[in-house]
Amino acid sequence: MATTGKQLFTTLESDGTLTVAIEEVSFPDPTGNQVLVKMEAAPINPSDLAILTSAADLENADYSTGKFVANMPEPFNSGARARHGQKLPAGNEGAGTVVATGDSDMAKALMGQRVACVPGSAYSQYCIADAAMCLPLGDVSAEDGASAFVNPMTALGFVENAKMDGQKAIIHTAAASNLGQMLIKICQEDDMELVNIVRKAEHVDMLKGLGAKHVVNSSDPDFMKQLREAIDATNAFYGFDPIGGGQAVDTVFKAMEQVAVGKMSEYSRYGSNQQKRMYIYGRLDLGPTILTPSYGFGWTLSGWLLTPFLASAGMETVGRMRQRVLSNITTTFASSYKRKVNLEEMLTNDAVMDYRQMKTGEKYLVTPWA
Amino acid sequence: MATTGKQLFTTLESDGTLTVAIEEVSFPDPTGNQVLVKMEAAPINPSDLAILTSAADLENADYSTGKFVANMPEPFNSGARARHGQKLPAGNEGAGTVVATGDSDMAKALMGQRVACVPGSAYSQYCIADAAMCLPLGDVSAEDGASAFVNPMTALGFVENAKMDGQKAIIHTAAASNLGQMLIKICQEDDMELVNIVRKAEHVDMLKGLGAKHVVNSSDPDFMKQLREAIDATNAFYGFDPIGGGQAVDTVFKAMEQVAVGKMSEYSRYGSNQQKRMYIYGRLDLGPTILTPSYGFGWTLSGWLLTPFLASAGMETVGRMRQRVLSNITTTFASSYKRKVNLEEMLTNDAVMDYRQMKTGEKYLVTPWA
Repeated sequence: MATTGKQLFTTLESDGTLTVAIEEVSFPDPTGNQVLVKMEAAPINPSDLAILTSAADLENADYSTGKFVANMPEPFNSGARARHGQKLPAGNEGAGTVVATGDSDMAKALMGQRVACVPGSAYSQYCIADAAMCLPLGDVSAEDGASAFVNPMTALGFVENAKMDGQKAIIHTAAASNLGQMLIKICQEDDMELVNIVRKAEHVDMLKGLGAKHVVNSSDPDFMKQLREAIDATNAFYGFDPIGGGQAVDTVFKAMEQVAVGKMSEYSRYGSNQQKRMYIYGRLDLGPTILTPSYGFGWTLSGWLLTPFLASAGMETVGRMRQRVLSNITTTFASSYKRKVNLEEMLTNDAVMDYRQMKTGEKYLVTPWA
Repeated sequence: MATTGKQLFTTLESDGTLTVAIEEVSFPDPTGNQVLVKMEAAPINPSDLAILTSAADLENADYSTGKFVANMPEPFNSGARARHGQKLPAGNEGAGTVVATGDSDMAKALMGQRVACVPGSAYSQYCIADAAMCLPLGDVSAEDGASAFVNPMTALGFVENAKMDGQKAIIHTAAASNLGQMLIKICQEDDMELVNIVRKAEHVDMLKGLGAKHVVNSSDPDFMKQLREAIDATNAFYGFDPIGGGQAVDTVFKAMEQVAVGKMSEYSRYGSNQQKRMYIYGRLDLGPTILTPSYGFGWTLSGWLLTPFLASAGMETVGRMRQRVLSNITTTFASSYKRKVNLEEMLTNDAVMDYRQMKTGEKYLVTPWA
């Protein structure tokens, strides 16, 4: 007996037409290690927007019930050539109840349980998920468990990665986010120094209220001085940036180098020997990354993604990270939401225009059965 | 008895005034492991220009005998804050004859020998050098040995670094340079695949004449297609770029990703899992490096400098590299020069305007006693 329900799909045509729409579909029976989850809650994360909205002209889009059609400008349309014509599901993560399972013992053990999962198709009333990636939530609600994967594992991943690289301090840009707040708590628990860069005075207060020691405001006239002092105090030559475009990373590299050069006894035309390391893990700014030639050659910049990091970290580390998330899901790893929407409400003009801004503290939660 | 002679110095004042001038100075007696070398030949490499000319307005400079005074525009003047007011020597490398030594056995063994050295003050009639870094040239002439360090060790360093990183292929931009030609020969000898990117049709012919298999011309209308085909044929997802500014690296990352995506069976919003790695080792273009968000998160870009690489490679590897250079100094590692100048000629308007362009195949050699 096939299970049917509503699911969101996003399709980009080669002419730049982006269609995001709810369809009534049949879900296959789970096989092997798969489970079928009745989805109760799924967050809209910045990483979801990459496929849901990207740089589409949403102001002039055509909105109807359960659907919008928008134009994707260049160079973003050409850049997304690989997905042209493909109807893709969306929604990295969510939580719900397992209503059917495949034959494997691992899958069968989850029958009837509430789980957090990472199906990549979470904006849906049902989805097929891998039992190995499901986190049984026990008496934690689906709403509390909906964001148990992306942000918590990413924030924990930063600290794990820093430890693997022998670092004792981290710089984090756009640090007032849900993820940034988790990172503050993790760093406190793990004795990792943390320099938080934010853009608003109210965010300085908020993060200091969470116990953050080093919070610098990029809107302050003496921002560079604040940043240099925080780097000097913590020895943070290693960091993570979710902005991507513009000069956020460039500014951090500059401040790092200025601190390192200030400690040199002799001038070197090649800059300091201090290795400076930054990772871009998001694209809040879709513009190009600008790196000026003002910090020598002792720097490395990489993209950072959760899935390859987890693959390289190994099962034991990942298991330990998941257990830590589950044990602290309503404290360290709690997410908060501005608004709950069902699948149709999610595609209305006012909702789309609001969540695509990715404002700090204004995350949306999709509740497909509401 | 003090040795006296002419030496070049470069001074940048905080107001942006750059003075490059020849002075008559006294050289100290070498001590310990030092040797005093009577310098016979020193090349002008792009890495020397960083301190000699940088982005100074040389067109409107004031030239007199053995001296020029130019203005350093912003942001380059502020960016060089750390050297303001310091009178610096210049000239990374050169060759000459050891005329005095310190007390160490290593230093004394070099007495009277012709050596290549890396004093950082090679634009001078004499210089103090570290015996441990001197390469005895035997019957190789000073002119043939003058460039025995920077380009040969850098080109060898690329191949050593690629091998350490498990790579079997390299991409090299601005590949028609002296260094690029050495790299072609090294890669042939070491069975390393190499994709050469050049900007002119005549350079395609020149490199193919050296036996290069993959040479692509960025001026061709189908450049991206050529580059993708060369990457596909060699599996080169790893490379070195001396340009730095602009989109040279961005273009290579794009082509790498397009090749990798072409091999994927399923679309991923995060791009391919193929790790893409580029190193910037020079600044032929002093503008900012532009990285567009068009190749996912699986990439890493670093600065690359010879000295820290050699330090990390270890004495054994460095010794092997030096021996290889010496054994092949007039073949694989031969440099050619457009023009020889003495110290005064080096600072004339026409010479400065010519070598600061860093044109392929137009390197200058300074012969301080001519």
